[in-house]
Amino acid sequence: MKLYVIGIGLIGGSMAIDLKNLYPSMEVIGIDNNETHLDQALKLGIIDKKGTLDELYQADRIILSIPVKDSVILLPKILDMVHTDALVWDVGSTKSQLCNVVNTHPKRQNFLAAHPIAGTEFSGPSYAQEGLFQGKPQILCESKSTRPDLLSWAKTAFREIGMYLRFMDAQEHDKHMAYVSHLSHISSFMLGKTVLEREDDEQNIFDLAGSGFESTVRLAKSSPDMWTPIFEQNKENVIDILSAYIENLENFKHKLVQNDFDDLYQQMKLTNQLTTILNGIKPNN
Amino acid sequence: MKLYVIGIGLIGGSMAIDLKNLYPSMEVIGIDNNETHLDQALKLGIIDKKGTLDELYQADRIILSIPVKDSVILLPKILDMVHTDALVWDVGSTKSQLCNVVNTHPKRQNFLAAHPIAGTEFSGPSYAQEGLFQGKPQILCESKSTRPDLLSWAKTAFREIGMYLRFMDAQEHDKHMAYVSHLSHISSFMLGKTVLEREDDEQNIFDLAGSGFESTVRLAKSSPDMWTPIFEQNKENVIDILSAYIENLENFKHKLVQNDFDDLYQQMKLTNQLTTILNGIKPNN
Repeated sequence: MKLYVIGIGLIGGSMAIDLKNLYPSMEVIGIDNNETHLDQALKLGIIDKKGTLDELYQADRIILSIPVKDSVILLPKILDMVHTDALVWDVGSTKSQLCNVVNTHPKRQNFLAAHPIAGTEFSGPSYAQEGLFQGKPQILCESKSTRPDLLSWAKTAFREIGMYLRFMDAQEHDKHMAYVSHLSHISSFMLGKTVLEREDDEQNIFDLAGSGFESTVRLAKSSPDMWTPIFEQNKENVIDILSAYIENLENFKHKLVQNDFDDLYQQMKLTNQLTTILNGIKPNN
Repeated sequence: MKLYVIGIGLIGGSMAIDLKNLYPSMEVIGIDNNETHLDQALKLGIIDKKGTLDELYQADRIILSIPVKDSVILLPKILDMVHTDALVWDVGSTKSQLCNVVNTHPKRQNFLAAHPIAGTEFSGPSYAQEGLFQGKPQILCESKSTRPDLLSWAKTAFREIGMYLRFMDAQEHDKHMAYVSHLSHISSFMLGKTVLEREDDEQNIFDLAGSGFESTVRLAKSSPDMWTPIFEQNKENVIDILSAYIENLENFKHKLVQNDFDDLYQQMKLTNQLTTILNGIKPNN
């Protein structure tokens, strides 16, 4: 079985490592615009060899792990090329546009829209790691459009590498990701920007970062190449939730100005319930 | 030597543990409104016994680790009571009001305004830990107002438990803390509030939290009892930096609406330089 990984970064690389462990006879071929990443992946043993897009007719499995704006262009072309029993899945953070663009493709059933909730703020194959997906959710979108035997293979493989599965339609996925993930990134990027603009002394940023800044600003290290297209594709949902966030911040500021500290106390107390949610819910499968 | 710890929580408790390790003959006495915390601290061996405020005339060293609104009331009374060679230091997150309130006190020189940049979003003596301050900054404010021999004792003790020292005036401290710490907490609390309001399904919050939410919202677990008075005491600086943050978020939203994704890319790219700052600066001492 030949597995092609298009975009051999943190996610594509980590998934290749786990699948190769699971199916040792699998041949892993890497494709990437970034020749340095390809060389690193080869040296690290993540891929067996380099490949090119024009070989994809011989692929049995394809992981599409490139920025979402490139996926919407490349996926239809990939489906044009692949053989009848091939399975292509993506790992992108937005799903509506991608599902739409192949909705009427004759080989739609050879595609599975997937979003593993795993990774860090770092990118590139040198950050790929074995077991990254252990205990992590894999969101599958519009999975009824995937051919049942291919879907079944994917579900088994994802579960074998430790993931639990959630099923959503693409629009629901994009809405929830705007709420829980995309807003967090904007919040973090703009926090970092604000502090960089105001704080003249970088030593202060370093010394005082342990007082809360470091964790809230972690996501501001994320790749703009990855995130700009996500915000573009999920623009409506992102604007909607960003507006709600700004409104809450404006309200907080207003209460400060009014000296209404009882109200601020109550807002924070209510928000503390997140602790229970983040600690207490058992995953479904 | 008798060390009194007023407010035996995460910070006061951790500091007591390290000082007791450093000076084994030191007797550690705990004072707290919260009887459960006192019992825990006694059981955990963090304090040798419980005490009361009316014994403070016999204290040699006092750590004041209670919410900042209580410190401004209690500190003058403590100074009224202590003997000539006693040293009191606080560990609070705001400094201007506290320094002001004892500015003309006849025993001002027995007080040192300190702010250890350490801790987590949790509170209480059960989270106290040995070595918490290792490699962490200790900010000393207006340290010239402290009697030199007492200051010297404190500097040695803080360095011995692993801290490096920074010196600031109280107003500078409060301004920088608003930038780097207090804004982070508001950003995180309001992010948590926004997501709780919009996301009906708690399972989604749990499943998708790994996609960025978990780290940005960590501070929203913080204690409102601690944070409300900090925002109150540092209101002017907090409003100022919160306004700048809201302005950046409004600008981000505007660029989204305008489809100016090149500008968003550039903003994120510039903010990525935080990685270098957070990784690369060596602490002064």
